[in-house]
Amino acid sequence: MEFPMSVLKSFIAGQWVGEKPAKALPSAVNGEIVAHTHDDTLDFKNAVEYGRKVGGKNLMAMDFQERALALKAMALYLQEHKKELYALSMHTGSTKGDNGIDIDGGFGTLFSYASMGRRELPSGNVVHEGPVTPLGKNNHFAGTHILVPRGGVAVHIDAYNFPVWGMLEKFAPTFLAGMPSIVKPATSTCYVTELAVRLMQESGALPEGSLQLIIGSTGDLFDHLEEQDVVTFTGSAATARKLRNHPNIINRSIPFNAEADSLNSAILAPDVTPEHEEFDVFVKEIRREMTAKAGQKCTAIRRIFVPKDQVNAVCDKLKEQLSKITVGDPSVEGVRMGALASIDQLEDVKANIQELLKTSELVVGGEGNFKATGDGTEKGAFIEPHLLLCRNPENGCGAHDIEAFGPVATVIPYETIDDAVELCSRGRGSLVTTLTTRDPAIAGRIAPLLAAFHGRLHLLDAEAAKESTGHGSPLPMLKHGGPGRAGGGEELGGIRAVHHYLQRTAIQGSPSMLAAVTREYVRGADLIETDVHPFRRHFEDLQINESLLTHRRTVTEADIVNFGCLSGDHFYMHFDEIAARDSQFGKRIAHGYFVLSAAAGLFVYPGEGPVLANYGLDTLRFIEPVAPGDTIRARLTCKRKIDQGRTSPDGHPQGVVVWDVQVHNQNDEMVASYDILTLVAKKPE
Amino acid sequence: MEFPMSVLKSFIAGQWVGEKPAKALPSAVNGEIVAHTHDDTLDFKNAVEYGRKVGGKNLMAMDFQERALALKAMALYLQEHKKELYALSMHTGSTKGDNGIDIDGGFGTLFSYASMGRRELPSGNVVHEGPVTPLGKNNHFAGTHILVPRGGVAVHIDAYNFPVWGMLEKFAPTFLAGMPSIVKPATSTCYVTELAVRLMQESGALPEGSLQLIIGSTGDLFDHLEEQDVVTFTGSAATARKLRNHPNIINRSIPFNAEADSLNSAILAPDVTPEHEEFDVFVKEIRREMTAKAGQKCTAIRRIFVPKDQVNAVCDKLKEQLSKITVGDPSVEGVRMGALASIDQLEDVKANIQELLKTSELVVGGEGNFKATGDGTEKGAFIEPHLLLCRNPENGCGAHDIEAFGPVATVIPYETIDDAVELCSRGRGSLVTTLTTRDPAIAGRIAPLLAAFHGRLHLLDAEAAKESTGHGSPLPMLKHGGPGRAGGGEELGGIRAVHHYLQRTAIQGSPSMLAAVTREYVRGADLIETDVHPFRRHFEDLQINESLLTHRRTVTEADIVNFGCLSGDHFYMHFDEIAARDSQFGKRIAHGYFVLSAAAGLFVYPGEGPVLANYGLDTLRFIEPVAPGDTIRARLTCKRKIDQGRTSPDGHPQGVVVWDVQVHNQNDEMVASYDILTLVAKKPE
Repeated sequence: MEFPMSVLKSFIAGQWVGEKPAKALPSAVNGEIVAHTHDDTLDFKNAVEYGRKVGGKNLMAMDFQERALALKAMALYLQEHKKELYALSMHTGSTKGDNGIDIDGGFGTLFSYASMGRRELPSGNVVHEGPVTPLGKNNHFAGTHILVPRGGVAVHIDAYNFPVWGMLEKFAPTFLAGMPSIVKPATSTCYVTELAVRLMQESGALPEGSLQLIIGSTGDLFDHLEEQDVVTFTGSAATARKLRNHPNIINRSIPFNAEADSLNSAILAPDVTPEHEEFDVFVKEIRREMTAKAGQKCTAIRRIFVPKDQVNAVCDKLKEQLSKITVGDPSVEGVRMGALASIDQLEDVKANIQELLKTSELVVGGEGNFKATGDGTEKGAFIEPHLLLCRNPENGCGAHDIEAFGPVATVIPYETIDDAVELCSRGRGSLVTTLTTRDPAIAGRIAPLLAAFHGRLHLLDAEAAKESTGHGSPLPMLKHGGPGRAGGGEELGGIRAVHHYLQRTAIQGSPSMLAAVTREYVRGADLIETDVHPFRRHFEDLQINESLLTHRRTVTEADIVNFGCLSGDHFYMHFDEIAARDSQFGKRIAHGYFVLSAAAGLFVYPGEGPVLANYGLDTLRFIEPVAPGDTIRARLTCKRKIDQGRTSPDGHPQGVVVWDVQVHNQNDEMVASYDILTLVAKKPE
Repeated sequence: MEFPMSVLKSFIAGQWVGEKPAKALPSAVNGEIVAHTHDDTLDFKNAVEYGRKVGGKNLMAMDFQERALALKAMALYLQEHKKELYALSMHTGSTKGDNGIDIDGGFGTLFSYASMGRRELPSGNVVHEGPVTPLGKNNHFAGTHILVPRGGVAVHIDAYNFPVWGMLEKFAPTFLAGMPSIVKPATSTCYVTELAVRLMQESGALPEGSLQLIIGSTGDLFDHLEEQDVVTFTGSAATARKLRNHPNIINRSIPFNAEADSLNSAILAPDVTPEHEEFDVFVKEIRREMTAKAGQKCTAIRRIFVPKDQVNAVCDKLKEQLSKITVGDPSVEGVRMGALASIDQLEDVKANIQELLKTSELVVGGEGNFKATGDGTEKGAFIEPHLLLCRNPENGCGAHDIEAFGPVATVIPYETIDDAVELCSRGRGSLVTTLTTRDPAIAGRIAPLLAAFHGRLHLLDAEAAKESTGHGSPLPMLKHGGPGRAGGGEELGGIRAVHHYLQRTAIQGSPSMLAAVTREYVRGADLIETDVHPFRRHFEDLQINESLLTHRRTVTEADIVNFGCLSGDHFYMHFDEIAARDSQFGKRIAHGYFVLSAAAGLFVYPGEGPVLANYGLDTLRFIEPVAPGDTIRARLTCKRKIDQGRTSPDGHPQGVVVWDVQVHNQNDEMVASYDILTLVAKKPE
């Protein structure tokens, strides 16, 4: 294979920089040189300023919705060039399956954030995090929260194990938030990240300045960071500590999000025995986690907690499963586990196994007859799976402290499930634990206890196993990151991750001011009332605060009777004079859904118009009862507009409009309050 | 006045500790000794372990709802003993008005968290932070998030300016979260905090171990902290830095939340001139913020940005207003501003004024003829308000960097409102800025720009001024804490603050497992179906997952006609064969609200029963249209139960039950999906 470049380049301030070769990066499979880092000095002051100014400005020229669309375009382009990434990535020691996790997993994260962005973020660049809370009795003063782009840059420092996913899972929410990224991949596998960044550049979907790439050291980068910037880090706990201690991080309160490897666990609950399907599911999950990416996942299972009387059964079964794993050159047919990322890593893992053996014994691996499959692999960073057993954890167990970042795990026996929880907590904070049980009552009691020191819990039974995405896979919609040893950070978790790159600010003021800032109608704000029914206005013409006060309707006993007969709802509160007299309202009242329906009758414009459909309703509250003789009227006000670039099934552009509805009675008491969700056509071209 | 004790005591591991006097604490008003700290050594290892074990266990024996009730009981007891606190607090230099902020403000925060807890938190000790996301195509595997108590202790380190509020605003959300607190008030005013803690103890509402108090230094406390603990800090940026650097905080990723003083601003927008009411409102707000607590508020206005041509008008008006402020012994009639907290503080403020004067000139104060009102005040820590003016900020302006933590502020002229934003950002992160404008368009454009480096924005116009709670007042429901110089932390902000003391954990598994863990019905979980209609079951008897599949109903053209005539909703989609044919559904369909009403008709039990009222509905989505000839049925499932200790107007105990409703058609397609909210009676005794 020919490599696309022998000297990797950084992408700084819009330029690809790097001519002179520095460090040679050998293939983890056969030791051949894949590429060199560059020896050119980078101007980090300029990089940071350029990011803030050029990148920031270009990102702010778009809005959340537009950036979501750009993410999707990038993902589509990357997907077309997947083969190039796969070919190059093989040299990191990854099998095809491992590449699926890194490369397709990375693309999937982009697609996910594109779609979550479109679905959950507003138009514009201000997120309104309501509800609005009145702060005075007469609604002259109220408070709420907004989230806005911070104006700085995000520095993302990634680990070597996922050169594509690691970058993209941090980049996607940052980009969506409107913050420029400067990414620094770990050196040993940075050639894959470099190619991914080149492809993203080529996609044409990346505004200038929104992504910069550092090959090599971060030099004096941190010295140029300021209060509005953000740093995220994935890697070893030791490096996390060092970076977290940088004077700029401490003195300027720069948000620092760390995700460190941790001593993740799998727990077999006492209700599962070898005759259950869950037993096999549990063993398979461990085999998968030990061997995927050759165990180089920050989420990989390192500790296996098993009821004392199941230890032999679990060890035997795992031995059988692991013996089927062929280790070697990923390009050779039949190979199921590749190499560690480098010879340094290999030495490190071997040393840690020796440490672990001080309190444990070997069950699988370490016999000394291991040889990797494939030509030239004697120069590669291969190691076979090692399963250890710590028979007497009460005499000390290194597995609670020592991480061998490779295909290594330790079986630890326990007496009761509560002991298992306690042993598990000795890891002092982990990314994830798998709990295998058949019994929801066990999960219901134990999961909250385990949750206190975990970022994620994977409850694995036979049903879940049918579709489980696996112990080791962080997903875009679920939080990734655990407390304590795992770094104490949070990544992913849906739109939460976007919030990490936004500033949350409380806003107080009169309702009209709050409406102007949040871009949403706030009750009490000055209304816009015209002669045109708001349902007759196209999406573009509708204004926030545009409002309709309807005509009135007197509710009669006949309405109640007719509504009950039509709906079939003959609840005593509406129909039984005797029971209703004893009820909380002391009399018969109209159906709540009648009030809702009658309100629609008051405000709906019956003819064809731009309002195409009412597809939902939120936060309906019936506040006061409506009885025969009461007269109601509704106020309908345009509350929120979202332009998701959506079209109707026949291709006509439309937007989402949320309307605030208030129904009052003749005494001006509010009887019902809710939001309705509509699709509204844009103007014909 | 006699002081309740001459040696203050710490409250550690259930004991009041402290016999030997150490440091004397003088009254800020007249220098008399109010109390002494103690010289006894505290066993912090024991304190931390006792907190985790005894406090943690006792708090976990209660649930969110019960702890909310306990907070309320504490607040009521404190309120009865308000006078004792007021009398003692006078010696900190506080006026009656200042005490209102600290003491009543503290009680208000307890009451607020009590009511937010009851309203927004579940029964039990697991918060389900949904929604549940399917992670497979056939709903065997799904994911969601829970928040659980962390199991550690919270160490709260407070500033001297608010000895009551400062403690309570941190304690309230911590207690609600089920985490024991160890509070360490600043020494100079800790005698007030000590009394407050005594009263809280006396209230009987505080479970053993849930609150410990440190008088004096924190000694080796931090050396005993672990991964599950939390530290919060309010005070100077320098101390924040020191604490944040503690090896345990760094190495164990212990969450550290800092709230530091910052250089907060007030901005007069260019649209406001002296003839507007807003001009006076602006000046009054500054006067109030400069003088309340003698300017010793972390939120106090330090920088006043004014359009160049309004500088003289603002200075003149402020001069007039500030000249009316009588400074002296708060117990003397007519005194409107008290003392700084100590002589040390006084020296500090004077030194900082000298620093500020290198780039500014004096407008008010510093003439040398100042004398505080009241006997013995020559030994007190008094200073008059100082207003400075930095005429040429382009030549440097110390006010962007130097904080005189007293009644000191600097007027800074600006050219355009964008210049004002830029100048304001030189504070490098602030807690709060007040923007005074009459124009929502200015607020709408400028507030998001300001928000990027603020924790809170106060938009002040004549309308807001009628009810404004003020620039300087953090409120329980709004976030307190800003980026950068302000410490980068978040406090308060409603239930968000409770989340800071809980661990967020992603949970993956089969729907039945997720239901068991979240204590909520998850679609796909195993249902409980009995012969009894769920609406006939009392609150205690109802089980999560208890479900009713209703009989069916065929929707007819007559239903549409009748529903349209009854509701008055004659939308073309239901009534106009021609227009409906061209619509997205290609045919006439039934009203969405008819489907909703008919579903109620299917599942409502008509007779008297424990289900008392349907008071609301959430997240209704119409998924597929229903047309004449379609046959629908509903499934009603008990989703969530919350026992808020609520009673009906006639005193009968009841709980909230949320039901999941799914309506399907004859093809098993879901046509509507929503939650309904009901009140359900408990069993008669």
